[in-house]
Amino acid sequence: MKVKVDGEERDVLAVWRERGVVKMVDQRKLPHSFEIIDLNDHKETAWAIKVMVTRGAGSIGCAAGFGMAQAALEAADLPDEEFMAYLNEAADTLRDTRPTAANLFKAVDKCLKASEWGKVSVKVEGILREAEYILKDDIKATEAIAKAGAKLIKDGFKILTHCNAGALAYIGMGTALAPIRQAHREGMDVFVWVNETRPRGQGARITAWELEQEGIPYALIADNAAGYFMQRGEVDMVIVGADRIAANGDTANKIGTYEKAVGAFENKIPFWVAAPGMTIDLQTKTGGDIEIEERDPREVTEMWGLNEEGEPTTIRVAAEGTNARNPAFDVTPAKFINGFITEHGLVERPFIEAFYWLFGQPGLPPSFKYAGT
Amino acid sequence: MKVKVDGEERDVLAVWRERGVVKMVDQRKLPHSFEIIDLNDHKETAWAIKVMVTRGAGSIGCAAGFGMAQAALEAADLPDEEFMAYLNEAADTLRDTRPTAANLFKAVDKCLKASEWGKVSVKVEGILREAEYILKDDIKATEAIAKAGAKLIKDGFKILTHCNAGALAYIGMGTALAPIRQAHREGMDVFVWVNETRPRGQGARITAWELEQEGIPYALIADNAAGYFMQRGEVDMVIVGADRIAANGDTANKIGTYEKAVGAFENKIPFWVAAPGMTIDLQTKTGGDIEIEERDPREVTEMWGLNEEGEPTTIRVAAEGTNARNPAFDVTPAKFINGFITEHGLVERPFIEAFYWLFGQPGLPPSFKYAGT
Repeated sequence: MKVKVDGEERDVLAVWRERGVVKMVDQRKLPHSFEIIDLNDHKETAWAIKVMVTRGAGSIGCAAGFGMAQAALEAADLPDEEFMAYLNEAADTLRDTRPTAANLFKAVDKCLKASEWGKVSVKVEGILREAEYILKDDIKATEAIAKAGAKLIKDGFKILTHCNAGALAYIGMGTALAPIRQAHREGMDVFVWVNETRPRGQGARITAWELEQEGIPYALIADNAAGYFMQRGEVDMVIVGADRIAANGDTANKIGTYEKAVGAFENKIPFWVAAPGMTIDLQTKTGGDIEIEERDPREVTEMWGLNEEGEPTTIRVAAEGTNARNPAFDVTPAKFINGFITEHGLVERPFIEAFYWLFGQPGLPPSFKYAGT
Repeated sequence: MKVKVDGEERDVLAVWRERGVVKMVDQRKLPHSFEIIDLNDHKETAWAIKVMVTRGAGSIGCAAGFGMAQAALEAADLPDEEFMAYLNEAADTLRDTRPTAANLFKAVDKCLKASEWGKVSVKVEGILREAEYILKDDIKATEAIAKAGAKLIKDGFKILTHCNAGALAYIGMGTALAPIRQAHREGMDVFVWVNETRPRGQGARITAWELEQEGIPYALIADNAAGYFMQRGEVDMVIVGADRIAANGDTANKIGTYEKAVGAFENKIPFWVAAPGMTIDLQTKTGGDIEIEERDPREVTEMWGLNEEGEPTTIRVAAEGTNARNPAFDVTPAKFINGFITEHGLVERPFIEAFYWLFGQPGLPPSFKYAGT
């Protein structure tokens, strides 16, 4: 993505690898400072995923792939058995960071699969290549999503989005923001309602910043205000990203997505999920099977930003010792979703059959019957 | 209300009057500091309402009544005609602070009505008495609401509330929090989900603090998480306050209330509005007639709290120059509301008929037909 940093245009990715070092845009510091952080081994990369130096299903997946590549390089001199043991331990470390995003687990599995044959040097090579493929496939997928989704957008549309599903969350053009970017580039007049997305404020800090950079008109709103604008007919469409999509279409995404979906349904506003096959998990039958991460309650009682002197500061909003709960995701049942914008085009009902057709492995039939969504 | 300030117990009201001075708990500074602010004339009182030194339908109404009392005292030495001109100008100044809360306009009208006969000294006396009545009626109303509403609560209930409708918002026992307080005092096991209520964080800053003070178990959550807990069956009931209730039951309340109501409806969770007759405005036919205040967008892009050194600081969360919108209220259509908890008991459908029966002026029949809610 192109970003303007101190007036200078730079072309960077949310996550990339240079030999044994994984590099990431430190998304915790956006929009107030644009910093690249170095993660020197797979354990540091796992830490960076956990504390959300990088976030978003795609970026987490790429980071996990590069973490596996780091592990492979770290163990490259070991004999095969020890190499595999090291790799499997690294896989567990990386899996153990954030439980919800499908991409993370798929990326780790793909790298493990790439180590299934050959001698150690071949395995290392295979893993490095696989990690690069994950990134490249992501970029291509977001470009296809952009084109497929732009067909849903009409000139003058006001589109609501939640959290950040842009180029920092899903490398390339992003997911939810990809069709919006595409429509804007095609000359359409589009406007974006940006939910601030408490507790971590990815909408306020990242989505608003991405749209500003690209000159796409938007307004930031409190999450509470989304329903108000829906009710007044000022939202033509909702597009969100996803962290994991179950086989039946139930979708885990940033906390609050469910409320917006229910509001859109009530107000007869089309609600679309933009996500590539990497985020669709056919092993997860329904949303009830998705593990929801619960994060530090201080994310709710505190907030981070710049103080009046322009220095980064964390403030405590609630009183000392306030009890809080902080689920990071929720599950939107498939019934509230009009369809999915994928790299293979728009997926409409019945979701499960379309998902198996488009994203199932050949020869792997649906393991359970389609029971409606 | 009883509050513990620096370990000492104090009994204070959100708003009161001492001769020509109106005193208020400065709610902008809670929970980090407990300060009483003096407003020395009716213009200062109007300012305090506008910038939300005090807030909440009841407290705004009381403040407006006391502002009228100040104006009456300020003009007490003028001849009748000039006194009335001064009073009417003060009424406009006070009305011009916040457009949504019904109590504000009713309180001003009540004080003007109290000045309809007698010489100036009698009028002044009448207005001072009326302003005190507004406060005393509010307190009594909240006690009746507490008792009526507690009957809806069962032992073990988890109740969701939005914004702050406690004793700082509605003097006495509050509105939405009154039944919860009552149930807790009766020994019931109750638990409260507190929405933080962005942008101004009244839930995080005031409701959580009020519940903590009274030892009622609660958890603060991001507004986005309310739907998540509803979906998982962890919300037995929703109780909110109101800023203005139209004749048909449509209810204006803090932005986000509508989303919670739609979520409750979807999950078959009872949704009750606690508010006395002062908040019911039979002159407003439906929610579409309620003016919604739009406030400074910096409330969305910024947030206030204590920094790591414990000093009060405002931080900017979004980038400089971020475009934002900030409607302060929304309207929940009556169809999502199970009923109203009022000083005359529980009001169920048809709302309009019950409202006229309980709160209409005698001899003033409904001016339009009941068309269902």
